[in-house]
Amino acid sequence: MSIETALTRLSTLLGNRLSRSKPDLEAHGHSETHFPPAPPDAVAWPETTEEVAELVKICAAERCPVVGWGAGTSLEGHALALRGGVAVDFSRMNRVLKINAEDMDVVVQPGLTREELNRELRATGLFFPVDPGANATLGGMAATRASGTTAVRYGTMRDNVLATQAVLADGRVIRTGTRARKSSTGYDLTALLVGSEGTLGLITELTLRLHGQPEAISAAVCAFPSISDAVNAVIATIQTGIPMARIEFVDETSAEAFNRYAGTDFPQLPHLMVEFHGSPGAVAEDARRFGEIVADFNGSGFRWSDRTEDRTALWTMRHNAFYAGLALRPGASAVVTDICVPISRLAEAVEETRADIAASPLQGPILGHVGDGNFHALLLVDRADKAEMDEALRLSARMAERALRLGGTVTGEHGIGMGKLGYMEAEHGPGWNVMAEIKRALDPHDILNPGKLVPQG
Amino acid sequence: MSIETALTRLSTLLGNRLSRSKPDLEAHGHSETHFPPAPPDAVAWPETTEEVAELVKICAAERCPVVGWGAGTSLEGHALALRGGVAVDFSRMNRVLKINAEDMDVVVQPGLTREELNRELRATGLFFPVDPGANATLGGMAATRASGTTAVRYGTMRDNVLATQAVLADGRVIRTGTRARKSSTGYDLTALLVGSEGTLGLITELTLRLHGQPEAISAAVCAFPSISDAVNAVIATIQTGIPMARIEFVDETSAEAFNRYAGTDFPQLPHLMVEFHGSPGAVAEDARRFGEIVADFNGSGFRWSDRTEDRTALWTMRHNAFYAGLALRPGASAVVTDICVPISRLAEAVEETRADIAASPLQGPILGHVGDGNFHALLLVDRADKAEMDEALRLSARMAERALRLGGTVTGEHGIGMGKLGYMEAEHGPGWNVMAEIKRALDPHDILNPGKLVPQG
Repeated sequence: MSIETALTRLSTLLGNRLSRSKPDLEAHGHSETHFPPAPPDAVAWPETTEEVAELVKICAAERCPVVGWGAGTSLEGHALALRGGVAVDFSRMNRVLKINAEDMDVVVQPGLTREELNRELRATGLFFPVDPGANATLGGMAATRASGTTAVRYGTMRDNVLATQAVLADGRVIRTGTRARKSSTGYDLTALLVGSEGTLGLITELTLRLHGQPEAISAAVCAFPSISDAVNAVIATIQTGIPMARIEFVDETSAEAFNRYAGTDFPQLPHLMVEFHGSPGAVAEDARRFGEIVADFNGSGFRWSDRTEDRTALWTMRHNAFYAGLALRPGASAVVTDICVPISRLAEAVEETRADIAASPLQGPILGHVGDGNFHALLLVDRADKAEMDEALRLSARMAERALRLGGTVTGEHGIGMGKLGYMEAEHGPGWNVMAEIKRALDPHDILNPGKLVPQG
Repeated sequence: MSIETALTRLSTLLGNRLSRSKPDLEAHGHSETHFPPAPPDAVAWPETTEEVAELVKICAAERCPVVGWGAGTSLEGHALALRGGVAVDFSRMNRVLKINAEDMDVVVQPGLTREELNRELRATGLFFPVDPGANATLGGMAATRASGTTAVRYGTMRDNVLATQAVLADGRVIRTGTRARKSSTGYDLTALLVGSEGTLGLITELTLRLHGQPEAISAAVCAFPSISDAVNAVIATIQTGIPMARIEFVDETSAEAFNRYAGTDFPQLPHLMVEFHGSPGAVAEDARRFGEIVADFNGSGFRWSDRTEDRTALWTMRHNAFYAGLALRPGASAVVTDICVPISRLAEAVEETRADIAASPLQGPILGHVGDGNFHALLLVDRADKAEMDEALRLSARMAERALRLGGTVTGEHGIGMGKLGYMEAEHGPGWNVMAEIKRALDPHDILNPGKLVPQG
């Protein structure tokens, strides 16, 4: 019973779709962020659910760790192979299996990326809205319960995965959920797998909710004298029931970063960027009513547009915020943070975080999905400088503690991975042990992504 | 170790809030539908989470079954005490603990009913939308993953429970979720408890999402020459992105029932009843565009109104559909069915069901939440007539099989309880065993609502 024996057997199963080459191991052993590399012992490229099931059965028999791999875009090192074993790369399982246009759902394989899916959907009048920024795989997005700019309107992966097929730790293949829009038949195994970060099963098929491409889109941007004015405008907008498709907050440092990076001329103030989806009449009315609320909260420079090129420029800028932020300090890396609080506490959370950063030697633009109460600070560091890294991690820890103190969560959308395991007990208390009990029941030999999510040792 | 010892200890804990009187046992031992009574050995009325935890600890030590009790409005006998033990009646835990208006959430105790909650919310401009018809308790609605007429817009209990406090089978108290709108911190224990029908834990506190009371509401009703025309109009409306708050289908037998019951003059045809929520301009536009779609699908008699009295009349009629249906056959009872299919298969599912009923000696109006693909047949029976009951159960079984064949689920919103346990293997396959493994991990002595949800014996 050993990893070596497992790899010999897997080689027979997969032929040259199992690799032990150094470049392949390195490519599947690093993360996008600051965690030390942890390569697997081999990389597998299965092509069918049956192959994944066979692979897991072999690994279960040999107690060989199994770690899923999507696009490698996780910011928390979810797919690092802490105990070696096999990285299961889903890039050869990347097909759209069935578009059900009338039902507004689609069945896909886990290795498909969200951008590929939306290209395939273009002619149908439908789209898949969850947008974490990176062109992640849909399997990875489900496994980490990803969200992004559109969650305020369309929800997160929790809301948009209707059903899955998954391979469990003993190689059993299960189907969870159906294509029906709702069901009351027992434990919600779909919701249990979504966000389980590969520790309970490998998702081999997903049925996703789709949404109609909006007939019209309008977008607006405006500046506020203070963070609390901006946040209060958002609260008022939500309470008025104006259906925002996106509402993003950027602080004055972010505005400065945009100006430097893209040659724009935003005042150095907090801004909101908002988008409305609907019929032409509805989005015009939404924008008009939003403008009134903005005025109530001392907003200025309110500009709205339903021209595609203006919107594209706006959201390109927002999507480039990471690079714009990095450009504030040439050569720097970023430690990316991610907390989410009840929206009534958001202004306080952002202001405390900004004061913390101001009092530190680091720069750190703040921006976030303000409709959800979720925000990030991009802490700019020289990764080779231990003192700077320590300071960034200290600021990040203080953000996590702040989120818990304000009734929120230590990660709104990036997941636990390597970076947030240390806060699980503080956030969940005895609930974290319940997670461990579920993990033990479904993966008694701890072969699925070991070292992650549940209490260790 | 016995139920008797448990009751002695519970009597010390709760005093006269533990009852063994026959009327109390009977009141907590029956269901709204045709399942035989199964009274508990005692009824407990705890007042705090701590008391519930103490109660469960005693019952765990003595291996005494514990069954939660809300308003007793379940249609599937969820709360029948199949193995005796203690019914935990939450009627003394019925307070609103905290309204967080800015965050649009509320913290409540499980014994509060949805109508009581909405009365408490009236002055806030907010409301809790999930509406299963009955004035159920919010704890019961969460435990059974209830939904109803507004799910098409506002979602089910799955979507509207943000967080819980629950007592597990060993008396541990956990908190799941936070007041943040989203989180990626591990297994979604909130989603696991919602719909678990009291088999994994007793929910002692819920944090619920609230929604803004709509500024304007418009409602419309219209007739169609066929079920498929009505359903295709709904599909087109959804695909156009018109945000319906409710969209209900009633068949020609239901229309006849309304006419007889309420003196209305609906043509004996399938009808849609729809409601829009939003700004005055938006709901007017929604109604206008819906009218165009109705015309495309041969709809007739399209009437819309934004007058409160017209809307109230419409929805009162819809809410009275159960009684109107019963009145088709004076003295009859109803066997209520509940399946949910992908909407593209809905016309087929309804038409097959109608043909089945037409070929049987029973009458059965059909109506449903057509935006979700969820519908019910009210099969009118004389409960004392075994042949009629057998026929109703045969029709119900054929509906469940039909739902599975068409890619749907055997219960959209009523839950498993006693009535749907026999279909769990067919719907979930090996996933049903996974539910059993989770149940064993969290309730190894099977004291929480034993005999329900998971494979037995």
